Amino acid sequence: MDFREALADVAAAVDRLIAADPFPETVAPDYLAAAVRDYPARGGKRLRPALVCWSGGLFGAPREKLLLPAAATEVFHNWTLVHDDIIDRDDLRRGAPTAHVTLARAVRERFPEAESARLGADFAILCGDLQQAWANDLLLRGITAGVRAEVIAGCARNLQRRGGRELIAGEALDVELSLRDPASVTPEEIRRMIDGKTGALLRFAVETGAMIALDTPDPAHETVRKISEFARLCGLAFQLRDDHLGIFGDARLGKPLGNDLREAKPTLLLVTAFRRAEEPARKELRSLLSRPDTDAALLDRAREIMTACGAAAALETEMRETAERAAEMLAAFPACDARQWLLDFAAATAARLS
Amino acid sequence: MDFREALADVAAAVDRLIAADPFPETVAPDYLAAAVRDYPARGGKRLRPALVCWSGGLFGAPREKLLLPAAATEVFHNWTLVHDDIIDRDDLRRGAPTAHVTLARAVRERFPEAESARLGADFAILCGDLQQAWANDLLLRGITAGVRAEVIAGCARNLQRRGGRELIAGEALDVELSLRDPASVTPEEIRRMIDGKTGALLRFAVETGAMIALDTPDPAHETVRKISEFARLCGLAFQLRDDHLGIFGDARLGKPLGNDLREAKPTLLLVTAFRRAEEPARKELRSLLSRPDTDAALLDRAREIMTACGAAAALETEMRETAERAAEMLAAFPACDARQWLLDFAAATAARLS
Repeated sequence: MDFREALADVAAAVDRLIAADPFPETVAPDYLAAAVRDYPARGGKRLRPALVCWSGGLFGAPREKLLLPAAATEVFHNWTLVHDDIIDRDDLRRGAPTAHVTLARAVRERFPEAESARLGADFAILCGDLQQAWANDLLLRGITAGVRAEVIAGCARNLQRRGGRELIAGEALDVELSLRDPASVTPEEIRRMIDGKTGALLRFAVETGAMIALDTPDPAHETVRKISEFARLCGLAFQLRDDHLGIFGDARLGKPLGNDLREAKPTLLLVTAFRRAEEPARKELRSLLSRPDTDAALLDRAREIMTACGAAAALETEMRETAERAAEMLAAFPACDARQWLLDFAAATAARLS
Repeated sequence: MDFREALADVAAAVDRLIAADPFPETVAPDYLAAAVRDYPARGGKRLRPALVCWSGGLFGAPREKLLLPAAATEVFHNWTLVHDDIIDRDDLRRGAPTAHVTLARAVRERFPEAESARLGADFAILCGDLQQAWANDLLLRGITAGVRAEVIAGCARNLQRRGGRELIAGEALDVELSLRDPASVTPEEIRRMIDGKTGALLRFAVETGAMIALDTPDPAHETVRKISEFARLCGLAFQLRDDHLGIFGDARLGKPLGNDLREAKPTLLLVTAFRRAEEPARKELRSLLSRPDTDAALLDRAREIMTACGAAAALETEMRETAERAAEMLAAFPACDARQWLLDFAAATAARLS
């Protein structure tokens, strides 16, 4: 199997498991139960479950021990999206209405007089809460697939650390940094935010696979730490690439350009440009932020400033080196299909192909 | 020790443990870390931790195995309050500002231009999420105090069921019932809501103590089920008493009277009255709901209708019988201090003394 086939293979198994899972069944009201199932059922690439399975496979765990924890990782990812979408006031997620929008509609149909938008957000808070519990339950049920209780408990503690603390604190930091003057934000703060918001759950995914395969409850185990650093670097490379594409991407592919300027989003690219550019370029760059009239000409001017000061090149170098360092982390491990897919994953995150 | 001394004893131990716990330390921004610690540090009666310790004590577990799970139960209770306070738009909790109000203030101090009320709610969502993870972590760390990993994993799964599903679905049902015409709400729906919102975490508390003492990962263990039913009945008695006091209480003690009428809150008392009263009393009772001008005279009229149709007496009988049934559940277990405190707890919830 090549990378895409291997990814589709994991996705199919995890999709089946999530769709058949009984956890949400007894939730009432029925529209809330439907919302609990909704995001996890929307598919997506299932990269995090694949990381659980491939990391586990690399160290010799059989697939059946990995599937419940893999599904847990995906459901955990999805509850953070539900709460994130409330906080970001987003209306769409993977082409369909966000949870709070769907729930507001359900309220409006049943109670035309009610404050439906606000109640939709209220129910969406509870929807994410229920999914957080569902994710924990899926992980803990790994015991029923033959993982030792001590190992599952170690993985579950690690989920509270990586997913419950680092990831959520990363989201909070993201909210806080977006309120700050971008010129006051340090690269270290952005890296910390990326390590939390993007890196933490990727680390949890590979750590879980490795801990199950190595039969250890300890995420500080030397091998687990190596594969964890691999995932952290992949997350960083992915985010650097994402931020770079937001300014230098091709408008015909991927995400709309210039949004990061319009929202004055403190990316590592922008913050680096503020540190490297000198007056008057620095002042001009600031004048290009938060403008509702951001167009191709203004975007081009921002590109010129970011390029001239060396920020763009510095980011491209860091992006490439980060992806290379990620790949090097795997060199110590035996060559096998799983290792190749992980290498392909590292290449794909940096290239944003997947 | 009498009941109050025993309760104060548990509270002191749990307070110390929560105050010293490192979980929130690495959370950023700092005002979010402070909010994560805030509710759990506000004290309160610590009834849920006491239930863990007394149930565990009844079946012979040493205190040191019970304290981390007891603290987990308290922190879990607190995160549900943080999200509940957002949903209920409450400003005060135990005499101090609610989490979203405190966080809005922190935002306003730092970012005077920002939409602070909304951002306060956003950060409070994340605050509750972090506390949910903290609670899970505290419980899982029970292993470090000598509880078998398999037993802790069983308790952790049970937390997702009782706290993560039944309790949250109970809150959702509470929101939904408050949108409905009270005359359309059935007593069964209210009982289900009470079993979730009030009963589920009380059940988790006693189940956890018993599972640790009996060294079993199975909440369906016969003894665990008995003590669980005890807690469910206590929760029901407490809620019936609370609803009764909201109409028939003494205004000089406890909560303000008439709020349940003003908010047309579908309590078991009100719903029973709607089922028992005949026209025109039924119609008059409906006219007394949702009125901003609810005063002593209107409240008296509601009391008369609820009394005349027999709803008040029916509720008082159910309240008393429920508390008695709870006490009977304990009769099979050996007499000891812990059993006496649990009996006192049952009496206190029905009498709302504590």
